[in-house]
Amino acid sequence: MEIVHTVAELRARLKSELIIGFVPTMGNLHAGHIDLTRIAREHLLVHPFNLAATPGCVVVSIFVNRLQFGPKEDFGSYPRTFADDTGKCRAAGVDVVFAPTEAEMYPVPQHYLVEPPAIQHILDGAMRPGHFRGVATVVLKLFNMVQPTVAVFGKKDYQQCRVLDNMVQQLNLPIQMVLANTVRAEDGLALSSRNGYLSAAERLEAPQLFAALSKLKGNLIAGERNFAAMEADVTAALQERGWKPDYIAVRRSDDLLEPSAADKKLVILAAARLGATRLIDNLELMLGE
Amino acid sequence: MEIVHTVAELRARLKSELIIGFVPTMGNLHAGHIDLTRIAREHLLVHPFNLAATPGCVVVSIFVNRLQFGPKEDFGSYPRTFADDTGKCRAAGVDVVFAPTEAEMYPVPQHYLVEPPAIQHILDGAMRPGHFRGVATVVLKLFNMVQPTVAVFGKKDYQQCRVLDNMVQQLNLPIQMVLANTVRAEDGLALSSRNGYLSAAERLEAPQLFAALSKLKGNLIAGERNFAAMEADVTAALQERGWKPDYIAVRRSDDLLEPSAADKKLVILAAARLGATRLIDNLELMLGE
Repeated sequence: MEIVHTVAELRARLKSELIIGFVPTMGNLHAGHIDLTRIAREHLLVHPFNLAATPGCVVVSIFVNRLQFGPKEDFGSYPRTFADDTGKCRAAGVDVVFAPTEAEMYPVPQHYLVEPPAIQHILDGAMRPGHFRGVATVVLKLFNMVQPTVAVFGKKDYQQCRVLDNMVQQLNLPIQMVLANTVRAEDGLALSSRNGYLSAAERLEAPQLFAALSKLKGNLIAGERNFAAMEADVTAALQERGWKPDYIAVRRSDDLLEPSAADKKLVILAAARLGATRLIDNLELMLGE
Repeated sequence: MEIVHTVAELRARLKSELIIGFVPTMGNLHAGHIDLTRIAREHLLVHPFNLAATPGCVVVSIFVNRLQFGPKEDFGSYPRTFADDTGKCRAAGVDVVFAPTEAEMYPVPQHYLVEPPAIQHILDGAMRPGHFRGVATVVLKLFNMVQPTVAVFGKKDYQQCRVLDNMVQQLNLPIQMVLANTVRAEDGLALSSRNGYLSAAERLEAPQLFAALSKLKGNLIAGERNFAAMEADVTAALQERGWKPDYIAVRRSDDLLEPSAADKKLVILAAARLGATRLIDNLELMLGE
């Protein structure tokens, strides 16, 4: 496995690669990220460009992107565990780790930005102004640096997946986007770098977010359609347990707008604070006829 | 020469090309555009990736981009001369003409936009709100469709060249940008598709824009530094001849901001209406020590 820090080194390393799988991360890698690298490799092996069924090249980027953090968010304290991360990548069979410095990514202030549409201002975007613009811009830059055939993102960041998938379509990027299912702990908690902020007691409580979403999903499948009432119930139940929910929202899975009673492809999205830690999670569901 | 109309056809045609030169146009091709295709070929022949010195593949796109026209501008009447354009491309040795339909370029309304910084709001941008955002967005889409090694733009659209060159740097696009000198008629008039709008009498007057810029350039070289006074003189002289200048501006060539007396790399930019036709032109200059 090679570790490169500059765009020039990266391009030299990737120059002769015919198919490239790419997993952008902010480091502090957990089993969810490693699962994305496995999925990247799987997609390379069956990719139509891969006539000789070669393993291709899996690239993981590690870059904590200041552009997507608000001024009061945890950019400074975000966990940076580079040696541990590269060890995990090596063990997982990753070919290249690309870890640019801030000066390499932003040699001058970033003035050219990808401006996503209204979806950037709802849900997590309403809580984190500029977040999705920062995500879209850095991912476009990383795409242009790596030029991947396949890129893999985790659905735990569901709104991010939608923004990036739409961006790839609308900007005609020649990249196959793969949106991978969330990896969970045995008790249901979605794996996240921010779980490391939780105290032992909070860690015991944390799976209740997934439990609440699962209960709401069950009610939807059972035929309930009063979305606002169901959202309010879950919000109240979490508040009673000491959570501070930012939103609990039933949305259409494709555009994250509010569904009508006739919509079938839904997603339940949640963001809530437990102590000082903000957790997000979501559950997709497809309603039958 | 092949003419393709869809992204799928284009990608299939270009799949095995190692080096690609790209000249994006809105059609109505003149000798200036054809010169850009020659320059693209020249750059492919000496490109470091071109180890075998093959001729490579020169692609011209023809697409009148609604996104960069204001609601009161000439999108509807912009000259569309496709048969003539493809004939000129063929004669010039172009390999591929890519002529997408509006439905191919914008199958759904374009919601993901490249937002350039303040430079998009000055000079031509002040007269044409949204113009450079529309240019940047369509060129990024075309870049992602064609994936060129080299892209060539004419300096007649000087502000556009600066916006696109900055965009390529800031978004880390793996493309060599070539900014080519303006091709002029014998009387000095910069070649432009919009010259076709001029009456015979206007065509005789039109070179006065270049003449005025040349005179201003001479004064700068002679040591004058009162930029505002020189701009006002040229504006008044053109107005006396019946022109309606939008701006006559001496700027720094790299960022198009107002120069200090110490700046050496300058450009004089002009936009002015002659009858119903809006013409633009510019002249670069490098002042000695």
